[in-house]
Amino acid sequence: MPFLRYDVTSGDWVVFSPERARRPHEFRRLMASAATPAEGTGPCPFCPGNEWMTGREIYAVRASGGPNDAGWRIRVVPNKFPALRIEEDNQHVEEGPLFRRLGGCGAHEVVIESPQHDTFLAYQPVEHIAELLGVLQFRHNDLLKDARIQQIVIFKNHGERAGTSLRHPHWQVIATPVVPRLLRLKHRLATDYFDLTGHCLYCEMVREEIAAEARLVALTERFVALAPYAAHMPFETWILPRYHQASFGQASAAELRELAELLRQVLLKLSTALNNPDFNLTINTVPRGEENEPYFLWHLQILPRLTTPAGFELGSGMSINLVLPEEAAAYLRDQEINS
Amino acid sequence: MPFLRYDVTSGDWVVFSPERARRPHEFRRLMASAATPAEGTGPCPFCPGNEWMTGREIYAVRASGGPNDAGWRIRVVPNKFPALRIEEDNQHVEEGPLFRRLGGCGAHEVVIESPQHDTFLAYQPVEHIAELLGVLQFRHNDLLKDARIQQIVIFKNHGERAGTSLRHPHWQVIATPVVPRLLRLKHRLATDYFDLTGHCLYCEMVREEIAAEARLVALTERFVALAPYAAHMPFETWILPRYHQASFGQASAAELRELAELLRQVLLKLSTALNNPDFNLTINTVPRGEENEPYFLWHLQILPRLTTPAGFELGSGMSINLVLPEEAAAYLRDQEINS
Repeated sequence: MPFLRYDVTSGDWVVFSPERARRPHEFRRLMASAATPAEGTGPCPFCPGNEWMTGREIYAVRASGGPNDAGWRIRVVPNKFPALRIEEDNQHVEEGPLFRRLGGCGAHEVVIESPQHDTFLAYQPVEHIAELLGVLQFRHNDLLKDARIQQIVIFKNHGERAGTSLRHPHWQVIATPVVPRLLRLKHRLATDYFDLTGHCLYCEMVREEIAAEARLVALTERFVALAPYAAHMPFETWILPRYHQASFGQASAAELRELAELLRQVLLKLSTALNNPDFNLTINTVPRGEENEPYFLWHLQILPRLTTPAGFELGSGMSINLVLPEEAAAYLRDQEINS
Repeated sequence: MPFLRYDVTSGDWVVFSPERARRPHEFRRLMASAATPAEGTGPCPFCPGNEWMTGREIYAVRASGGPNDAGWRIRVVPNKFPALRIEEDNQHVEEGPLFRRLGGCGAHEVVIESPQHDTFLAYQPVEHIAELLGVLQFRHNDLLKDARIQQIVIFKNHGERAGTSLRHPHWQVIATPVVPRLLRLKHRLATDYFDLTGHCLYCEMVREEIAAEARLVALTERFVALAPYAAHMPFETWILPRYHQASFGQASAAELRELAELLRQVLLKLSTALNNPDFNLTINTVPRGEENEPYFLWHLQILPRLTTPAGFELGSGMSINLVLPEEAAAYLRDQEINS
């Protein structure tokens, strides 16, 4: 059963997940992320007809059939080896003056993108992508009904270098019983900015980037895709709302439809420009209870995995980026895509 | 010429290094770290006889020959494509209300471990490892003489998954004109602990870990190797002094000799246990001017690259660890090595 431990030196909580743990001697070579659904050999557990291979479905969008039958378009199932589980408690236990442990309360769900085993998200119809974003939003809002949950982290791993081992396209939703330190820090910086200026830091940034133009990738009525001024990695791309909205849970169906179209375009451009690069996609949003705060703007981060963080990055937390965001944005803007 | 940009959303400075940058279209597939010396094809630039292939040597320990001749045992050269350079200024430039840029003042050196192209550090004689640690310490102290330098980051990348592309064993030393945010945060947490309790957080942790025993890997008179209570990754191993010492620059020759022996043992155990895993090794130490602070303990971090950080880790900053530090430590303790 999973639990967390507090790192007094960095202020991070670390998830320990012995259910997915292997014995030490099995550790000689691992490739995938610790948060990737464990894959066996044999048939794909995410393909239609193999519904019995996953845990009982949590939710599905389907044209036909009942729960755990085929006929679904999007399907949400529990992660087979969950990093956190709703059945655990969120009790703190002191294991020594500096050692503090927390129950592994939370959730770890897999959102199967479509019945198709091999279709890249950007090749799905816009309506399907919008529906998928709606399912992610539903899971976000539904999981937050449990008052023990503090933060929802939504992400997708595309390709081996991005930590996936299961080819069938899927997203993951992890609900945590604490606000991760990095997110707390970002929210604190944004709050400080709001306290100082009376403005949302992210809305100001969006306004400045649109005025400057150089780092824009694409623009719609309500969203902007851009390479941030201080991008941490080559071709890092963010998609943000152009009007203040703190939580992903607040986006309207019309907004998700517009976002789906923009996301499709940006992924097509990245895929064409960089020859189907491995990437992670994450949705940054506020923790529980801050949905109406004036200080944060939820956004998507697309993080291509073109370089490997090494000793400098791990030791200092600082990044070295080899590509200017202005050059990356111009290169992406210039990509011709069939839309 | 390199420079830094400030990320207002995370408080990080990001290094931009256009001298090592490739054109966007060359980015279709990269494998190594942005901080790895760029490798061409052809002869190894770090092997004896090829001294002409590097920039002019900064320092060397040699039995014979003059600067840039063969005959050296350890050789320090500039990185061919430096992330930061001593020739740059450290001027701040405002490029907009939210956009701030800083000159790429600093240094980026390569410390060639030995003349041997293919010998793993742990197979070097203890005296050689001690000499190497002495050279790293000399570069640390020497670079800090430039008052513009705020932090020295020392690291080694072992293997492709750890971000290296040059096989010949080497370390890197990067001097930065700012204190990286992660290090500042760690120092702040340790200062808060000191202000609250009057004790060094790290010394207390070392005392507790030695008393608890379960996470110890090895112990000498003046150093301890352990798997930290809230290790972020499987088999993460730290080596810390047992007596308070804030800066790596303060260790005595006798201490470095003892550290060399312990480091050799720990690396042999890791290599045996995990079949020569890729890993990063970093030296954590205080920034400029805090050498005599009572709040921090310099230490080595060995970070095996057995799993791939994916969307959850990148999006939340939180880690999922599949192996309990107690199990990792016990497994390493049990490894028989020839010493």
